[in-house]
Amino acid sequence: MEVVVVHGGAWDVPEPLWEASLEGVKAAARRGHQVLRGGGSVVEAVEAAVVVLEDNPAFDAGTGSVLTLDGEVEMDALVMSGARLRAGAVAAIRSVANPVKVARLVLEKTPHVMLAGSGANQFAAAHGHPQVPPHTLVTPHARREWETFKKFSKSVDSLFNVLHVQQQRSGHDTVGCAALDSLGHTAAATSTGGITAKMPGRVGDTPVPGAGGYADDQVGAVSTTGHGEAILRVCLARHITATMATGVPVSASIESSLEHMAQRVAGCGGAVAVSREGEVGMAFSTPRMPWAYVKHRRLHYGIHPGQHVEEDL
Amino acid sequence: MEVVVVHGGAWDVPEPLWEASLEGVKAAARRGHQVLRGGGSVVEAVEAAVVVLEDNPAFDAGTGSVLTLDGEVEMDALVMSGARLRAGAVAAIRSVANPVKVARLVLEKTPHVMLAGSGANQFAAAHGHPQVPPHTLVTPHARREWETFKKFSKSVDSLFNVLHVQQQRSGHDTVGCAALDSLGHTAAATSTGGITAKMPGRVGDTPVPGAGGYADDQVGAVSTTGHGEAILRVCLARHITATMATGVPVSASIESSLEHMAQRVAGCGGAVAVSREGEVGMAFSTPRMPWAYVKHRRLHYGIHPGQHVEEDL
Repeated sequence: MEVVVVHGGAWDVPEPLWEASLEGVKAAARRGHQVLRGGGSVVEAVEAAVVVLEDNPAFDAGTGSVLTLDGEVEMDALVMSGARLRAGAVAAIRSVANPVKVARLVLEKTPHVMLAGSGANQFAAAHGHPQVPPHTLVTPHARREWETFKKFSKSVDSLFNVLHVQQQRSGHDTVGCAALDSLGHTAAATSTGGITAKMPGRVGDTPVPGAGGYADDQVGAVSTTGHGEAILRVCLARHITATMATGVPVSASIESSLEHMAQRVAGCGGAVAVSREGEVGMAFSTPRMPWAYVKHRRLHYGIHPGQHVEEDL
Repeated sequence: MEVVVVHGGAWDVPEPLWEASLEGVKAAARRGHQVLRGGGSVVEAVEAAVVVLEDNPAFDAGTGSVLTLDGEVEMDALVMSGARLRAGAVAAIRSVANPVKVARLVLEKTPHVMLAGSGANQFAAAHGHPQVPPHTLVTPHARREWETFKKFSKSVDSLFNVLHVQQQRSGHDTVGCAALDSLGHTAAATSTGGITAKMPGRVGDTPVPGAGGYADDQVGAVSTTGHGEAILRVCLARHITATMATGVPVSASIESSLEHMAQRVAGCGGAVAVSREGEVGMAFSTPRMPWAYVKHRRLHYGIHPGQHVEEDL
C-alpha cells in the first residue's frame, strides 16, 4: 500500500492563508504520491513532497522562511529512511532554495547525520547544490513580520517582554511529510525557516531525528511541527513512534504525545504519521494545521479541528 | 541523597591513556560532588564536573579536542536540567575552552535550546565568554592523529576506504556527567570535540537532548558516549530513560539500550546514569570506558569491563 501524508505547520494559521495552505498541502501530497506511483523510492517521495512546500511562499520553509533577529534566512531540514534508520540533516543553512535536498545529500554522501552553519553551506556547494541570493527566499510577509517584531522589541524595555511577544507572534509553519511504499519502506522529511527573530545559529527540532521526524520500518514514519524548543525537550517524534509501537492507533499516539508535551513543557504542536500497516494519523494542539494525504487513490485533507474532506485523486 | 557520576568516553582507550583517564574521571566526580556539598545546584555540579574533563587534555572535549577534516577544532556540548526539562546546547562552536559553560548560558539566557556555528560563537562573545586562540585547544596527540589521517586518506583512492579508516581510527572520547541532588533534582551534561577528520559543521549526538544526554526528575539523568551518528539515529539517551521509567534497573536499562543500538544501527557506545532514587548505573559496548561516581561519601571507578574499584572519598 502506498501512503503519503503531509503537513504545512501547526499554528494559528490566519484566515487569509487558509486556502493557500490547503492547496499547498494537497499539491504536495499528490506530488509525493506521483513519485511513488512512478517507481520512485519512499525517500524520493518525501523529498519531492517537501520540495513542493519549500517552493510555496505560503509556508515557512525554503522560499517564505521567516527571518532571524539579524534579518537573515537560516533553515533546518531532515530526511530519514526507515529501512535502516539512516538520517541526513542540515541546520542553520543559508542561501539554498531546498534545504531538504541538501539533507538528503548528507544522508547519501556523508558518514554523518547533521551538518550545521557554514559547514552545511560548504558541503552543499561542493555537491553542486545551487546557492541562491538570500533575498530570493524572503517574501514580503516574512519581511513585514520581522519589521513589526523589530519595531515592537525596541518599544519594550525588558527581555522578558520581547521573548513573550516573540512567542505570541511567531508562526511555526514548518512543513513535513511521512510516507510508506508498497514494499513496506517508510521515510520522513521535515523542513523549516524556524521562528521569526530567532537568534542567529538557533537550531530547532526540525533537523533532529526523534524530534522533528522519525522513520522506522518496524513501526512507521512521523513528521512533527510546533514549538521547536518544546519538541526537542520531549523528543516528540520518538515519543510518537514509541507509542505507536505499543499498538496505540496512530492519531491517538500523536494526541497522547502532544498531551505529554503540554503537561511537561507547556508546548503546542502537531504531527502527521503513517504506520507500517498504512494507517494514517494526524493531530494538533494548536488552533489549526493544514494536512493532506493520499491513500487508495483518494485525497484527504483538512485544516480546522475535526475537519476531514475526502475526494478522488 | 547526592550522587555524581561521570564518564570519559566509550572507545578503545589505548593503554598509555588508562591511568590519566581514570585520574581524570575521579577528579571530575569529586569536583561535581564538592559543588553539591557546597550548596551548588545540580546544574552547577554537572557543569563543574564536565569543565574538569574539558580542561584535561587526555579527553576529546575542550582542550584535547580532535580536529576536523580542515584541521580545526569544532565542539558540541549539552546541559539539561531535569526539574522542568530545560536544555541548552552549542554545536560546532570554535575557540572557546569550555563549551559546556556556553551551553549552560544558552539554557539560562535564551528562549532556545541549541545554537550552532558562528551564531553560537557570537552568543558566547556577547555574554563575555572568553574566546581563546584556536591552537590553545589543540594537543600534540590530536595533531598527530589528524596528520596520520590526512596522510592515509591521500594514499587510498576511494571515499569508502577513507570513511572506513576514519571509523577505525577515531577515538570517541566524549565526556559527560549525570547527577542527583538531595532535593531530588537531576541534571546531565555532555561535551565533545567529536571524531577525527569529521566534516566541518558536523553535529553529533552530544548537543541533542535525548541523544547525548537527558534529565528528567521523574526518572533520572543520563549522559551517553560513542558513535555519535548511531546514537542520534536511535535517540539513545531517551531510550535509556524510557527503559528506566518502566522499572528496569539502571545498568540493565543502559545495556538493553546499547543492545538495541547494536541491533538496529550496528553502533557501539556507553553511558552513565543515575535514577531519581539515587541508583547509579553504567555500561559500554566498546572495549573500555573510564567512569567514576561518588555516593555515600565513597568514590567508585573503573575503565575495563567488569572493573569496579571502591575507596573512601
